[in-house]
Amino acid sequence: MSMSHWPPFNFSAGPALLPASVMEQAKEEFCDWHGSGLSVMDFSHRGLDFTSIAEQAEQTLRALLTISDDYHVLFCHGGASLQFSALAMNLLKRKAVYVNTGIWGKKASQEALKYGNVSTIDALQNEQDLSCILPEGSWAIEGDDFDYLHFTPNETIGGIEFDSVPTVGRGKLVADMSSCILSQPINIKDYGLIYAGAQKNIGPAGLAIVIVRKDWLRDDLPSYVPSLLDYRLLAENQSMYNTPPTFAWYLSGLVFNWIKEQGGVATMSDRATARSQALYQCIDNSALYRNPIHPRNRSRMNVPFILQDEALNSEFLKQAETHGLMYLKGHRSVGGMRASLYNAMPMAGVTALVDFMQWFEQTHG
Amino acid sequence: MSMSHWPPFNFSAGPALLPASVMEQAKEEFCDWHGSGLSVMDFSHRGLDFTSIAEQAEQTLRALLTISDDYHVLFCHGGASLQFSALAMNLLKRKAVYVNTGIWGKKASQEALKYGNVSTIDALQNEQDLSCILPEGSWAIEGDDFDYLHFTPNETIGGIEFDSVPTVGRGKLVADMSSCILSQPINIKDYGLIYAGAQKNIGPAGLAIVIVRKDWLRDDLPSYVPSLLDYRLLAENQSMYNTPPTFAWYLSGLVFNWIKEQGGVATMSDRATARSQALYQCIDNSALYRNPIHPRNRSRMNVPFILQDEALNSEFLKQAETHGLMYLKGHRSVGGMRASLYNAMPMAGVTALVDFMQWFEQTHG
Repeated sequence: MSMSHWPPFNFSAGPALLPASVMEQAKEEFCDWHGSGLSVMDFSHRGLDFTSIAEQAEQTLRALLTISDDYHVLFCHGGASLQFSALAMNLLKRKAVYVNTGIWGKKASQEALKYGNVSTIDALQNEQDLSCILPEGSWAIEGDDFDYLHFTPNETIGGIEFDSVPTVGRGKLVADMSSCILSQPINIKDYGLIYAGAQKNIGPAGLAIVIVRKDWLRDDLPSYVPSLLDYRLLAENQSMYNTPPTFAWYLSGLVFNWIKEQGGVATMSDRATARSQALYQCIDNSALYRNPIHPRNRSRMNVPFILQDEALNSEFLKQAETHGLMYLKGHRSVGGMRASLYNAMPMAGVTALVDFMQWFEQTHG
Repeated sequence: MSMSHWPPFNFSAGPALLPASVMEQAKEEFCDWHGSGLSVMDFSHRGLDFTSIAEQAEQTLRALLTISDDYHVLFCHGGASLQFSALAMNLLKRKAVYVNTGIWGKKASQEALKYGNVSTIDALQNEQDLSCILPEGSWAIEGDDFDYLHFTPNETIGGIEFDSVPTVGRGKLVADMSSCILSQPINIKDYGLIYAGAQKNIGPAGLAIVIVRKDWLRDDLPSYVPSLLDYRLLAENQSMYNTPPTFAWYLSGLVFNWIKEQGGVATMSDRATARSQALYQCIDNSALYRNPIHPRNRSRMNVPFILQDEALNSEFLKQAETHGLMYLKGHRSVGGMRASLYNAMPMAGVTALVDFMQWFEQTHG
């Protein structure tokens, strides 16, 4: 059996693919937005054309995630990593708890250590040679006098996802949703702050969304806080204290519209489940592939898998690319493979990947 | 006499127009870069396709500005305002001198005050009702034991430009070139650090270029410095400590190529002089328009002008837009009009603006 070449499907963990129809629309109006003769990229951010685009994007996001007026929605520069610093600078007064289940949580907590008292909980454990998240009852949290509890609902690199929202700290949760935002409904009231780098489920790299309870903002920040990391200042200026990343903001708005048209985050969640189940089933039915995560914590967004014979890694990647299956190489800290299946990934991409993996196992396994 | 409608020309101070041929190329390959079937926007920043794009952009910029290997070139998130904080965090140990000639310099010095001892020099003065820059001999700088001397070669809002590089502090100058980078040759050795937000002469908003002497980087930064503002860390990671704004980086590379094809920064400089002279001549020959800057410090990039009869402001803007001359409204802190004439502005845009201004004066003046 020989395999056909598919239209390329991009399994990159981020920057990642955007919905095809969004890209087509953005291309169509790239040099001439709505007959203006100008590109959105060239609009003054203070002009009516752009402020309308910006406001509309925020409103659509608020509707998708049912974000009440008790929360600011900020469009920030710089991705989630800059928010590791910003959120701690803005929120950490006495103590913060970081429940870490992977590399990104660890990075977030290390950055927070610069700004105050941080209690970290290593919440990864092994069950029958599978990684999983330590049950909440075993988290050694002393008292509830913490400012916030930080966790990473989905760890992009490890491919490990919380199967439920922690109950401890409800109402003062801080969540890095970079790789899972808009992939399922949330209860906004559980959170004091949600943040996400755009380049996975939202838009292009260079933008981060921050959703923060208004009554969590302070006017007594340490004097070293850069203006651009001061949430109160950003909120007072509608995220335009300086020139925002306008094109990324605009594209995010198109993605929000697309999600709405598709049926909202409930639809995104159903599709994420279907996509990931198809791939995990392929892996579980195989003698060549293996996913190292306990089924209850398997990520629906990022599916790492290793080849039992690691000598086949480079051949797998080479053949995959030949067949139009791109960026399947695992993170350098983990090795193996990783297929990221964000909102914009069509089921056809997963089907093509599964077909390829089965063919590869038959011919090389 | 009635005026024709021009193809829209964008005089926004930033985000600003990019070269038409760059926009056409970016549109052409928006969904399919070089036959890859993928968008640059979707490339993993660690993949060979993107790292080649990134490296090429840096090399072209280095060639355009003759940047030696003694300097790092960093592609940073967040525009120049974030660098106000970052540069002071990284460079300010004992004392810094800020020579301020407008709003941006003032903002930069206020941000630096958070991080150390700052001596500010208000270098604006009035000569015959015209603003100009105080001669260097009158700057009250005590000693030369400062870490760096910060100035703003071109103040975007005021439209005021240094007619020469300061001699005091040569070799340890820090310059905010957001609105004038790549508009004239520089002698890199005069500077310890040059920075620029991209959205005027380089590319889309959300990116800043930082050019910094390698031996200026420190490993003894204060503990509060966010990782993403630590120049040494960024340099060690080739500006990819986290996911960079990949699409903005790519587009900047296209702009660098365009400048090279046009003849380099010397050509850009000649054109900037020709464009701005045409507009200043129109203003000076008019009874209706007035530019408030002394001729020796008139900006070649941003030309503010007021209408002697301010009651005509809104009619001027309305008519200008009708004729395809966009975003001429002055900054809210200054009022009046402002025409920004960056590298990508064709002479035809200036000619159209001059024709319109003459017609408007004849019919409304």
